[in-house]
This record gives sequence, C-alpha cells and structure tokens, in this order.
Amino acid sequence: MADLDAVLSRVRDRVLPEPAERERLRTTAAELTARTQSAVADLPVDADVVQVGSTARGTWVSGDRDIDLFVRFPADLDREELEEYGLAVGHAVLPDGHEEYAEHPYVKGVHDGFDVDLVPCHDVASASELVSAVDRTPFHDAYLTERLDDDLASDVVLAKAFLKGIGAYGSDLRTEGFSGYLTELLVAELGGFVPLVESARSWHPPVEFDPEGHAERTFNDPLVVVDPTDPTRNVAAVLSAANLARFQHYARDLLATPREELFEPPTRDPLDAGAVRDHLERREATPVAVVFDAPNVVDDQLWPQLRRSLDGVVRGVDDRGFGVLRAQAMVDDSREPGGGPAERDRNGPDRAALYVEVQTPTRPAVERHEGPPVAVRQHAERFYESYADDVDPDTYGPFIDGDRYVVERERTFTTIRGYLESDAAGDVALGAQIEPAFDDRDVLVGDAVATLADEFGESFREFYEPHP
Amino acid sequence: MADLDAVLSRVRDRVLPEPAERERLRTTAAELTARTQSAVADLPVDADVVQVGSTARGTWVSGDRDIDLFVRFPADLDREELEEYGLAVGHAVLPDGHEEYAEHPYVKGVHDGFDVDLVPCHDVASASELVSAVDRTPFHDAYLTERLDDDLASDVVLAKAFLKGIGAYGSDLRTEGFSGYLTELLVAELGGFVPLVESARSWHPPVEFDPEGHAERTFNDPLVVVDPTDPTRNVAAVLSAANLARFQHYARDLLATPREELFEPPTRDPLDAGAVRDHLERREATPVAVVFDAPNVVDDQLWPQLRRSLDGVVRGVDDRGFGVLRAQAMVDDSREPGGGPAERDRNGPDRAALYVEVQTPTRPAVERHEGPPVAVRQHAERFYESYADDVDPDTYGPFIDGDRYVVERERTFTTIRGYLESDAAGDVALGAQIEPAFDDRDVLVGDAVATLADEFGESFREFYEPHP
Repeated sequence: MADLDAVLSRVRDRVLPEPAERERLRTTAAELTARTQSAVADLPVDADVVQVGSTARGTWVSGDRDIDLFVRFPADLDREELEEYGLAVGHAVLPDGHEEYAEHPYVKGVHDGFDVDLVPCHDVASASELVSAVDRTPFHDAYLTERLDDDLASDVVLAKAFLKGIGAYGSDLRTEGFSGYLTELLVAELGGFVPLVESARSWHPPVEFDPEGHAERTFNDPLVVVDPTDPTRNVAAVLSAANLARFQHYARDLLATPREELFEPPTRDPLDAGAVRDHLERREATPVAVVFDAPNVVDDQLWPQLRRSLDGVVRGVDDRGFGVLRAQAMVDDSREPGGGPAERDRNGPDRAALYVEVQTPTRPAVERHEGPPVAVRQHAERFYESYADDVDPDTYGPFIDGDRYVVERERTFTTIRGYLESDAAGDVALGAQIEPAFDDRDVLVGDAVATLADEFGESFREFYEPHP
Repeated sequence: MADLDAVLSRVRDRVLPEPAERERLRTTAAELTARTQSAVADLPVDADVVQVGSTARGTWVSGDRDIDLFVRFPADLDREELEEYGLAVGHAVLPDGHEEYAEHPYVKGVHDGFDVDLVPCHDVASASELVSAVDRTPFHDAYLTERLDDDLASDVVLAKAFLKGIGAYGSDLRTEGFSGYLTELLVAELGGFVPLVESARSWHPPVEFDPEGHAERTFNDPLVVVDPTDPTRNVAAVLSAANLARFQHYARDLLATPREELFEPPTRDPLDAGAVRDHLERREATPVAVVFDAPNVVDDQLWPQLRRSLDGVVRGVDDRGFGVLRAQAMVDDSREPGGGPAERDRNGPDRAALYVEVQTPTRPAVERHEGPPVAVRQHAERFYESYADDVDPDTYGPFIDGDRYVVERERTFTTIRGYLESDAAGDVALGAQIEPAFDDRDVLVGDAVATLADEFGESFREFYEPHP
C-alpha cells in the first residue's frame, strides 16, 4: 500500500485547500454573513443567518468557490412571505444576482469571485417538522460538523476529488452521481477514504447503510444511505446504477494500480466532424439525430425529460424493427457552462438532440403478423375473414405456418427517417415540456449527423470514445 | 345442407371410378397377380401374393393408377433371402421396372398404364410379430376391408379427393399429409366424410382416436389415430401441424361455402422470373438462395434432410442478426415428376435451394456484447481485463451501461452473402447427405434469385402466392 499512500499524499497536496485559500473564504463568508444579517434587520420579522455546505465544514476541494448562506425564518412564516423576504435579502446582498428555483425561488450571484447561493428556509426545531426540503440542510450541516474531525474532513476532500475524477460526483439530475452530503456520510460511516474504496470494490447492490439505525421504510435503490436526520429518506436516491458501478470499477482500479490521474477529471476535448465521420465509417451503423430546441428550464428539470423522451424514441424505433444499437441524449455543449434560464432568454434556447444508432435504416415493405392457431375456432375465423377479402395487393396470405394463420401486410414505416418525421414518432412518451419543441424537430440520418459536432462535440466524445 | 349434398353428388360423379375403370383395374391386377404367382413358383420357397391398398379395396380416386402387390414370404425367411427373392420376382414381373427402397428394396414399374409396386414382406400371424414395417400392410388391408361398406368406401374416395384438393394428401415426407390408411380409418371411425369434416372444424389438437381402445403408449403429435393393428403406433405420426390446421380450415370452408373446386387440386403454374421480380420489388425484403446439388436419394430421405438444413441455415442467419422473414426448401420442379434415382443417375442430380427472405442484407461492423454486472467481482474483473488491453481499434469500451460492463466489438459477418459463403454457414446442423453438396453451394442475393424461376417456378408460386 506504500504506492497508494504516496499517491494519496500527492493528491492531498493538490486538493486540500491551503491556509491562504481557507482564510480568503472565511473572510468573504463572514463579510457576506454580516451583510445578510444587516439586510435581515430591515425586515419586519426576525431571522438568523447560517453558513452551510462544504465550505462551512472545511470539506471543499481546493478551487471550489461555493458559499451557501441560509436565512432561517420563523417556522410559522407562510410560504409567500418567506419567498418575498428571501428574495429581498438576496437582491440586497447580491445586487447582480439572478433568481433560481429549487423548492423556493432564491438568489444566486457572484461576490469576490465566489459563487454565492442565498437561500431562505424555515427554522424548524427538528428534521421531522420540515416545511420544505431546503429546511433540512442546516440539520445535515450540524450532523456532519459534529462527526467529521480534521482527518475525516481531509478524507472527504479526497473522496470528492476521486468522484470528480471519475465523473460520478454531483447529485444534479444530469449527472445522477454522489452528492456532497452522501460522500461525507459514507466517509464518516466507513471511517475514511481508503476504508470506503476498500469496501466499495466488493459491494453487492443493493447495499444499505443506516448510520443512526432508524430506517422507517424500505428503499428500492442500488445504494441506500438512510439520512441520519430523516428516517424516511435515502440520501443516495438520485445515484444511478451506472455511477455506483463506475465507483466500484474505479475503486478496484485505484487499489490495484494507484495513480493520481484518477483524481483528475479527464480533459475530454469535443470530437470534431471529421472524427465523428471516422467513427461512422468504422461502425457501419446508421446514426440518427432528432434535434430540437430544449425548453428553457433548469438542468434538473430538463434532463429527466430528455431521458424520458430518449427512452420513448428508443422504444418506438425498436418496435418498428430498426434495432437500436446505442442511444444518448445531448444538449448543446459548445456554450459557456453555467448559463441559466435568464441567459437563454437573451441568447436563444439550447439545442438538444436525441441521438440513436440503429442497426438498419430500412425495413422490408411487408411485416409478418401472426394470427391465432387455426384450432381456436372463433378467433381463427375472425382473423381469417378480416384478411381473406383484403384487396390490398401488398397483403400476403392468410397462409398457414405451423398451427397458425399468418399474414404479411404492408409495413407502415420502411425507413427510419419516415418514422421519425411522422406524427407517430411524437406519440411515444416524451417529457411534458419537450413535446411542443418536438413538433419542430429536425431529423438527421447517416453522415449528416457529423455536422452536429460543433454543438454536441463533447457528447460525441462520450458516445464514441466511451470509458467506464 | 342441400347445397353441400348437391356439391358432394357432383364430386362423386367425378371421383368415383366408373364400372369400366373398375373392370380394367380388376383385370390388370388379376393378370399381374397371376404373373407374380408364376414367378414365385420358380423360387425355392413358398410365398403367396396379395393385392393391397386402395385399388384392392375400391377406395381409389378415379384416375389413380396404382396397383400394389405384396409377396408374402415365410416369417422365418431371413432378410437377405427375402430381398433377393423379392427383387427376382419383381424384375420377372416388371422387366422395365426399377428398384426403390422403403424398408427393403422393391421393384416399381409400369404395366398397361398402371404404376405397379411389387413388394416382398413376411407372412406373420399377427401385427405384433412384424419383422418389418411393410409386413403391417396386409393387416391394415384386412382391417379396413372388414369395416368399409360401399357407402363408407365411397365417402373415403370423397375424403381423399378433398385432401388432394387442399394439398394435404400423402404421407410422404415432403407432403407430411394424410396417408390413405389414415384417411380410411378416420372416415370409418367418424362414420362418413361429412361427419369427419363436421368433427374436424372444431378439433382442438391434440386430438386422439383409438378405434380399438388399445393404446399402449402416449403420443406427442397434434393428431393421434392409434393403429388398430398396432397399439404402439400413431397412424398420423407423419401429419404436420400445418396440414392438420389446413384440413380444419378447409373443413370449415367447405361446410360454410360448399363448392366443387375444393376437391380439385389447383393448377399452380410456375412463377416466371418477371413475376418473381415483381414480388421482390413489392416486398422490399432481401431474398437469398443457397443452391446446391441434391443428394441422389428418394424424396422420403431427401426432404427431412432439406428441412433440417433449412432450419439450420435459418437459425444461423437469425443468430447473425439478419432477421429471417420467411424461408422454404425447394427442389427443381421443372423436371418430369416421378423421376427416380436411376433417372437422376443418368441425367444428373436435381438442384435444391434453401430459400430465405431476410430483413436486411447488411449489419453494422460492431455488435454489442454485454458483460457481467460490475458488482459480480470475479467475473467482472475477468471480463474487463480481457477487453481493457484490446488493441483492436474496432472495439468500443468496455464501458458501463446500467450496472454492467458492455463492449462493442467487431462483428464477424456484416453481409448476408459473407456469412452464407463462409465456412461458418456450413457449421449449422445440415442433413448428413446435404453436407458434402453444401460445400459447392452457390449463394444468390437479391434480384439474382429471379434467375432460379426456370428450375423452381412452382416453389416460387407457393412462396409468393401462399394460400391456406
């Protein structure tokens, strides 16, 4: 393990914030807290201000620049007032900030180079009295602050750096990875980063941890970590099976061949059109892309809808016999990251694509349709009669195959383009806000998809150069 | 039912032999019997001569010209002598005849315009002492002769004409239909032709009849008629599920819409190349034909091997992902029917074709290969390692999909022609005597198959104008 120790020591040097970085953050957070308190003083209600999150607990990865301040209003304040006061404070403290929406609207802005979230919540006495989900955050913060000593806090930073390095960090609904809170709980529960990866390499999902031994229900997720502040909640509910598998894969990889690069997110340059064409030529499959304007909503609303739409299209394409080889939802990745709805309002919507590789772009003009066994008299007679007088010259049969009637009848869609451009393609289960944009879709088939590389180059890289 | 009665009466007029036809057959059979007896007299053993089959029982369809004479040798005569004496008698009676092979070799020939089979058998005391299967025939004959009065005999003729009309008559292994013996037993058991079709229209296979109530085993066939002379034998063992279904279909059709044409085999003119091309254009599927010399064996040996070979090729083509739409085995149908092995020895072998319509002639160059779930550590590690160092640029992955490793690796066969011309295509289960000829196969793909219409025109008609 000497190797691993040496690697982890070098990683620590890189990812643990230096005293200067800590001091700068402490100063800025204190100043923001004071300004928030002063804004609160102008309100007709009392409220206290609490800094939460990894920068509050000293568990951030060097270079992270997030400061989260929660303004705790009385538990009996009604929702409308809470939202009004919360936004008032937010705009006062962050005059250049913009509004985002989680459980409530809140203000997000930049101050002294830090990304600041200023979030209103209710000051409830215990997690069992939550008014809304954000009210839980201060309890999380208190729980972890009590359990993470300096050694564990430093291991949390290692764990986060590792999860970032392998692409499994983040509980947003695009990533479906490990949240910060989940990571910290796992490090606390297993007693450090190395014990965590040693444990993970032989997990057999479903795996369940319940630090407080108080679970009040069962969960259906591959990883379950019962929230110490809420016995009905799985902290890992968002984590996908793929990201759990990914974590297990790289846990084994790290222990077998320790190396620093596993803690560094790979730079995945976008693929250009020529490289896409090379892959198309090599794979000899038929790529198709359904491209449309993404609805102007936050990623956490967009991605579940994109995935649902992709599943619907994949099912539709498979049902029509074109045979899906692989599929991926994509959103324009050429724009500056972090653009919010306001930016998109100004600059136009992001383009989104449902990208599907199919086995064949064409199907025969006839399709086989099996009828009932001839012996099942009523069904058989009805089936036979409904086709026997069919004057369509493209219907073959009914004839007998084995003990059944069979007809071959005209297939509705003989080309993948014909299907995807038809109204039938819109009949699959699409995300609710995708549906209207889907009506104005562009359908690209074959080599033409390479022209999308300018907008979707990073997604193409993921698709055509996949790694665990 | 007045309609049905009128139809059946007109059919009877056509299919029941007139007195003159009966007399001519009687005279010829008597003459042949006498000649056979005289040939037997030259042998060093005793034997009697018995006329069997439908022409012996008056249950033949007008125009049939088959006379079956059995020469019954002592039960203790050994096989070699029986064959030697049997052939000697056969060649003496039918000097222009040729040898065929059922259980033993026997002589088949033409005499006064009748097709004569001269078959040696053992004269056993009861069906339970059979030496070979042909010894059973005289028992069948005796059983039916006792049970069929003139009315039933005339209904047997109707039933045979009907089964011929719908293409389900004949227990040869090409047709897999109703044998004469099976037809006669069913008419006797159900009490006539109309009771038989009335019963058949609502049969739910498996259907079992056991006229003597003496079955000594169970059978797995869709129709079971226990042989009255052998409690271990299903007389309908050869009947295919499709021909049973066909019989049920046309039984309903006849009773619903009585008409004479159901008793007349349709003239199915061969399809010419132009008509084949029209169907190809209409269907937009990819036809492929694997053409080779049929081994020079009788149909009852050839057809099971052709079907087995077709099943093997269909499975192979499906396994490679080309998607079979429909398939059929074909033998050159342009030659004079009834040509035997001797003719083929002189004139060259028949050509045979395994004809398969596939959904797509090409496949992508990569195919998906699912590995184990990442959590199943030993399998997962072995799978990952076996591909991780794969330097083949055509292998994509291993990547993670859901909870599993997946790779996309180079597909061996990307075209149906490539597969069918490869050694791998010969690795499927082929009929034993087909295998050597298969090595010299021609593979036709697409429109080129139309050139086969000269040899396989009737089979093309069956394939492209299928009826129940």
